[in-house]
Amino acid sequence: MSPVLEKFLKIRNHTEKICVNLEIEDYLPQSAEFASPPKWHLAHTTWFFEEMILQKFVKDYTVFDKSYRFLFNSYYNSIGERLNRGERGLITRPSVEMVYKYRAVVNKQMELLLQENDSEEVMELVILGINHEQQHQELLLTDLKYTFSRNPTYPEWQKEPLVSSNNQSESWLKVSEGVYEIGFDGSGFSFDNELGRHKVYLNDFEIANSLVTNGDFIEFINDGGYQKSEFWLYEGWAWVNANKVEKPLYWYKAEGKWLNYTLAGLKEVNSDDVLAHVSFYEAAAYALWKGCRLPTEFEWEIASEAFEWGTRWEWTNSAYLPYPKYEIAAGAVGEYNGKFMINQMVLKGASVATSEGHSRKTYRNFFHPQMQWQFSGIRLAK
Amino acid sequence: MSPVLEKFLKIRNHTEKICVNLEIEDYLPQSAEFASPPKWHLAHTTWFFEEMILQKFVKDYTVFDKSYRFLFNSYYNSIGERLNRGERGLITRPSVEMVYKYRAVVNKQMELLLQENDSEEVMELVILGINHEQQHQELLLTDLKYTFSRNPTYPEWQKEPLVSSNNQSESWLKVSEGVYEIGFDGSGFSFDNELGRHKVYLNDFEIANSLVTNGDFIEFINDGGYQKSEFWLYEGWAWVNANKVEKPLYWYKAEGKWLNYTLAGLKEVNSDDVLAHVSFYEAAAYALWKGCRLPTEFEWEIASEAFEWGTRWEWTNSAYLPYPKYEIAAGAVGEYNGKFMINQMVLKGASVATSEGHSRKTYRNFFHPQMQWQFSGIRLAK
Amino acid sequence: MSPVLEKFLKIRNHTEKICVNLEIEDYLPQSAEFASPPKWHLAHTTWFFEEMILQKFVKDYTVFDKSYRFLFNSYYNSIGERLNRGERGLITRPSVEMVYKYRAVVNKQMELLLQENDSEEVMELVILGINHEQQHQELLLTDLKYTFSRNPTYPEWQKEPLVSSNNQSESWLKVSEGVYEIGFDGSGFSFDNELGRHKVYLNDFEIANSLVTNGDFIEFINDGGYQKSEFWLYEGWAWVNANKVEKPLYWYKAEGKWLNYTLAGLKEVNSDDVLAHVSFYEAAAYALWKGCRLPTEFEWEIASEAFEWGTRWEWTNSAYLPYPKYEIAAGAVGEYNGKFMINQMVLKGASVATSEGHSRKTYRNFFHPQMQWQFSGIRLAK
Amino acid sequence: MSPVLEKFLKIRNHTEKICVNLEIEDYLPQSAEFASPPKWHLAHTTWFFEEMILQKFVKDYTVFDKSYRFLFNSYYNSIGERLNRGERGLITRPSVEMVYKYRAVVNKQMELLLQENDSEEVMELVILGINHEQQHQELLLTDLKYTFSRNPTYPEWQKEPLVSSNNQSESWLKVSEGVYEIGFDGSGFSFDNELGRHKVYLNDFEIANSLVTNGDFIEFINDGGYQKSEFWLYEGWAWVNANKVEKPLYWYKAEGKWLNYTLAGLKEVNSDDVLAHVSFYEAAAYALWKGCRLPTEFEWEIASEAFEWGTRWEWTNSAYLPYPKYEIAAGAVGEYNGKFMINQMVLKGASVATSEGHSRKTYRNFFHPQMQWQFSGIRLAK
Repeated sequence: MSPVLEKFLKIRNHTEKICVNLEIEDYLPQSAEFASPPKWHLAHTTWFFEEMILQKFVKDYTVFDKSYRFLFNSYYNSIGERLNRGERGLITRPSVEMVYKYRAVVNKQMELLLQENDSEEVMELVILGINHEQQHQELLLTDLKYTFSRNPTYPEWQKEPLVSSNNQSESWLKVSEGVYEIGFDGSGFSFDNELGRHKVYLNDFEIANSLVTNGDFIEFINDGGYQKSEFWLYEGWAWVNANKVEKPLYWYKAEGKWLNYTLAGLKEVNSDDVLAHVSFYEAAAYALWKGCRLPTEFEWEIASEAFEWGTRWEWTNSAYLPYPKYEIAAGAVGEYNGKFMINQMVLKGASVATSEGHSRKTYRNFFHPQMQWQFSGIRLAK
Repeated sequence: MSPVLEKFLKIRNHTEKICVNLEIEDYLPQSAEFASPPKWHLAHTTWFFEEMILQKFVKDYTVFDKSYRFLFNSYYNSIGERLNRGERGLITRPSVEMVYKYRAVVNKQMELLLQENDSEEVMELVILGINHEQQHQELLLTDLKYTFSRNPTYPEWQKEPLVSSNNQSESWLKVSEGVYEIGFDGSGFSFDNELGRHKVYLNDFEIANSLVTNGDFIEFINDGGYQKSEFWLYEGWAWVNANKVEKPLYWYKAEGKWLNYTLAGLKEVNSDDVLAHVSFYEAAAYALWKGCRLPTEFEWEIASEAFEWGTRWEWTNSAYLPYPKYEIAAGAVGEYNGKFMINQMVLKGASVATSEGHSRKTYRNFFHPQMQWQFSGIRLAK
Repeated sequence: MSPVLEKFLKIRNHTEKICVNLEIEDYLPQSAEFASPPKWHLAHTTWFFEEMILQKFVKDYTVFDKSYRFLFNSYYNSIGERLNRGERGLITRPSVEMVYKYRAVVNKQMELLLQENDSEEVMELVILGINHEQQHQELLLTDLKYTFSRNPTYPEWQKEPLVSSNNQSESWLKVSEGVYEIGFDGSGFSFDNELGRHKVYLNDFEIANSLVTNGDFIEFINDGGYQKSEFWLYEGWAWVNANKVEKPLYWYKAEGKWLNYTLAGLKEVNSDDVLAHVSFYEAAAYALWKGCRLPTEFEWEIASEAFEWGTRWEWTNSAYLPYPKYEIAAGAVGEYNGKFMINQMVLKGASVATSEGHSRKTYRNFFHPQMQWQFSGIRLAK
Repeated sequence: MSPVLEKFLKIRNHTEKICVNLEIEDYLPQSAEFASPPKWHLAHTTWFFEEMILQKFVKDYTVFDKSYRFLFNSYYNSIGERLNRGERGLITRPSVEMVYKYRAVVNKQMELLLQENDSEEVMELVILGINHEQQHQELLLTDLKYTFSRNPTYPEWQKEPLVSSNNQSESWLKVSEGVYEIGFDGSGFSFDNELGRHKVYLNDFEIANSLVTNGDFIEFINDGGYQKSEFWLYEGWAWVNANKVEKPLYWYKAEGKWLNYTLAGLKEVNSDDVLAHVSFYEAAAYALWKGCRLPTEFEWEIASEAFEWGTRWEWTNSAYLPYPKYEIAAGAVGEYNGKFMINQMVLKGASVATSEGHSRKTYRNFFHPQMQWQFSGIRLAK
């Protein structure tokens, strides 16, 4: 079995393992426009292989079901019309069982193809599809957590919450000004938005070796951080007031204690654990309150070898924009990254929900500044 | 077994029979604020018996699950806080299986109670609960149809659509002016909004002996009825334009033919079938286009013995308001009907989806004028 | 000078008198979709005469300005496209001065026409136009009050507020059941919605001889009336909560006292004054709290000779629907009343802002149940 | 007279000169949340001097009117509550005349102060206030144009439109990679967001010596540019579809010709004129369609000496973010710039509406990517 096929099957299998404790009911709801149902993730990642590879490279390929092109396209305009994004939770048929069958059939077809065709073009697309599926593995978890959190009974789905504690004493790493190189240059896979290795000029800066903890953030709350406009960006302040935000997503106060919804149910907030589920607005306000700022994505990338990372997506103060020489690929694949380069902020690192083997320091994750549902945290700079 | 218990078990059983072909997935989605999930209907009707009867009349009654009071209350303010109406589709737990278990346990408890307690107070509440469940049987069907219709694959759920054809030649029934009596006076059950039998003065009127058919309505469409403001109420015209309405709900035009989504899938529209799924606005516009009007609820009730009815809820030109001497009952039961007496129009009759034995000529159904998802049709008057 | 011409000139003149203390700035803003600018009222009432009469009956009539047909049409679909209703405050040109010139020119043209043509058709339309302008005189005042109230400096525009006190001791008038006649039957003018004199059957009822005062309503507030769901219609309760309503429009609490914005500025609320500026929802909740109800429009009309009325528009519990035999007139005039017969409640009587000579007991005013900006009050029935 | 006082009076006078042809009516409307009334601009710029300078540096200063602090604060949280941004058009009092009086009184007070106090602190604030007023001079013009454009009669306010033609033949300027210095370093005034002169590393790039013309953009339109999703950012495509955008703001097609609303009325679009009133989304789509891209703000600043600029605000592909070492000033002045550094894109240059003496190459203007109402244009890079 070729290493690519092996990896393909492993990743495909891992997606299904994530779902092993789900009830059929859990596969259905879309609890927000941004949070897709597990069933949809299972089908969409499969559709990606069928649409981008099987239809192109298997002669006379017959799709599993014609309606899936419409139902499980996410945002590829070049592939045609698609279900409105907010309606993914209304589609009860195909059943969950049928979607698993779809996965099995496409896996088999991919297996057959990969035994015959090891062209670079196919290999690249398979690797892209694998990485795409890994991204959806993380989304599947975070979307599921969001849906469960909307249930007033706070379901316990896993035995253990995905936490991570901060055992390091805080210290500041200093980096000297100068010209540095940024962007992916290794061998192996990267997304196109990491490419175009290029020089940037960085000024002297300091960056924390550890992440902000729950205890740190409670101090901000207790100091009235959510009520003081001077720490907030204008649109952050509007967001706080319109949504009455006064705590990280999933925190609840009961009898004077902070509780935290996790995939293992409601747990008491542990001060030493690393803070998660804050928006860019909260991250920026916290940093200003501390007399610091957030690092840029370039500072982060250069300094990253000197600190531990990987438990939280770390908000940076860099907007998600193209690197010099960035070029959008032709065809549907070109819609993967480039068209989102507006109104979003870069997050660096990875999180406890990120799939194994899917992290690298040049990775550029990106979300709108009000988003909280990822395992997003704060690292300070100054 | 007492007749009331027998009826109770029969109706409870019928609700579950309606669901017999559903996949678990079908029980979940809420496709609009007005269209609740089957799982919710199954649980809410059960909650009604637990909340209104078992908790009051069974000593030391222990509820099946404390969270259900919050999860499955529909709109009873006096019973306390409840889930937001639009979030019924997000609750994956309790599972469908657990809801059926809830039904069984409550049925058993009710059985025990009814063997011991045949007080008038309990009997009245059981009968109310049975009628409440029958109302939800119809809603379960119409909500399910709405959800299935949002799926671009148009699932076929039943073998046969719920149609009804009009075999009568049209004629006009004349009623002479005078004082007539309106409202429930029989023995047996009625809702409180039918009570207060009272006199009304009716002017001479004529009313059609049959309902408007698909073929009749196609003439209205073909004559540009949806494009001519002169036939529409001001808010109806705004509704038509804001929603780009140009046909009854569930109709689709394909290759020059009108198709109709039914619970048995997409079917060609049959001209002789009775029109369904029109709003009050469409009904009123059609009537004006025909040089007629809709009957009032009083005209309908007086004339109803002279015509056949029961396949469509028939829009009347009466607003849903209290009868003289109408009184709101004390407690939660008082929230059943009276508080909805604003901004809604009365529909008379019953439909193909109405539960057997749940019809009478004094029944006052009511919906907002833009609603189309019931099996609502048109009878003309002049 | 013919009596009609005399009346025409008098009413036209009165509209301008209302505006005598306005600054140019006051003529411009539209402070809500329902509240039009004074400039617009001045122009629209003039447009009505130009569009409905001069263009039809003056040979080779040249309109004052072609764009006015678009700018100053209110809601007549049959006359063509028009400015979006919410954009009336954006039109700075024509200037206020030009609108007054428009009025003068149209007045002159009408004068010439009326000296030549006294046909019944013209007379009827002139009388309609006069009554139309009188309706806008009241709206001009109430819209202006609404706009001024949005200014945190609470401008004082008049010397004296439009108040009216209740000097009567409360008593109940009894009316016996039977058949009564309803609707306009006199000579002189009425709107088409009052026509079709017809019989109704009324049950025994009692109706208060006087209106609810500020003092009465303060008791409701102090008893937590706005916080108790049991007194509210379902949609009223939603309205209260969505808009955080806790007092009549224009009331403000300062240092423990109730203040009231009037056209003469902020004044202390006088307990003996008649309550104004409540919605139907508030009226219905108050009535229920008092163990009473609102009268129907029929009860009101029959009983009206036995009590004083005319200072407040009195909410009834009747929906605004056509009388038997109501017919919509042909042409643009047919859009005057009939198309609004949905989702609105009838108000009887008249108010302190109603133009002199524009009241009669058969008058049917109508507004949506949440509207507060008219001088609307409460009379109880039981 | 000190040079600062002289400049102060000159700029204050210039604001009023802009308004010289306005009717009183034109001062009132707010035609969009982003487009404030002229009266508000006149008052707010005056309030700035009163609030930031007179109240602090004049002993026992009595404000002109206490309510102005609330009415004419724009977005300074530290100064307290203020009028909702969307309600600026509802405030008919103070009158326009009173606002001019306010200006005169504050001018006089400033004159007295500046004759006594030439401290650096005061000088800096006066200069800031002058630059602030110059910004509002441009906004006054662009907001007025927006309001006039909403009037279907398209008022002609000036004799001549603010156009500028492109006489240059297109050529590409090449800049070599390396470290460059960015940011304000001169003497004289700059905003705080230009400060922190710092090094950046630029890659080789080419930039056009001239701006895109109307004729260029018509080619994009004629090629179906607005209908091809592949040229658009994801949120740009959503914006185009939600708003049915298919041309620059103020363009209208009539009888096959493109017309353009200008402050001198509707004019035919001249192909050689420089394009204006496009959003960032349109600019980015056009650039991609041309196989190019937009320059970054750094590329623009470095290359700017080699080309002519100043007739259009030029969209860059740089997000508005702080320069390294940017620090937010203490107090209300600190709210001037920094809190807007999210979700906005930088525009470089200046426009035909920019006040004389208010331009420099380090200026960083910023707007949300959907905004079209400034004189914004396109310069290509590659």
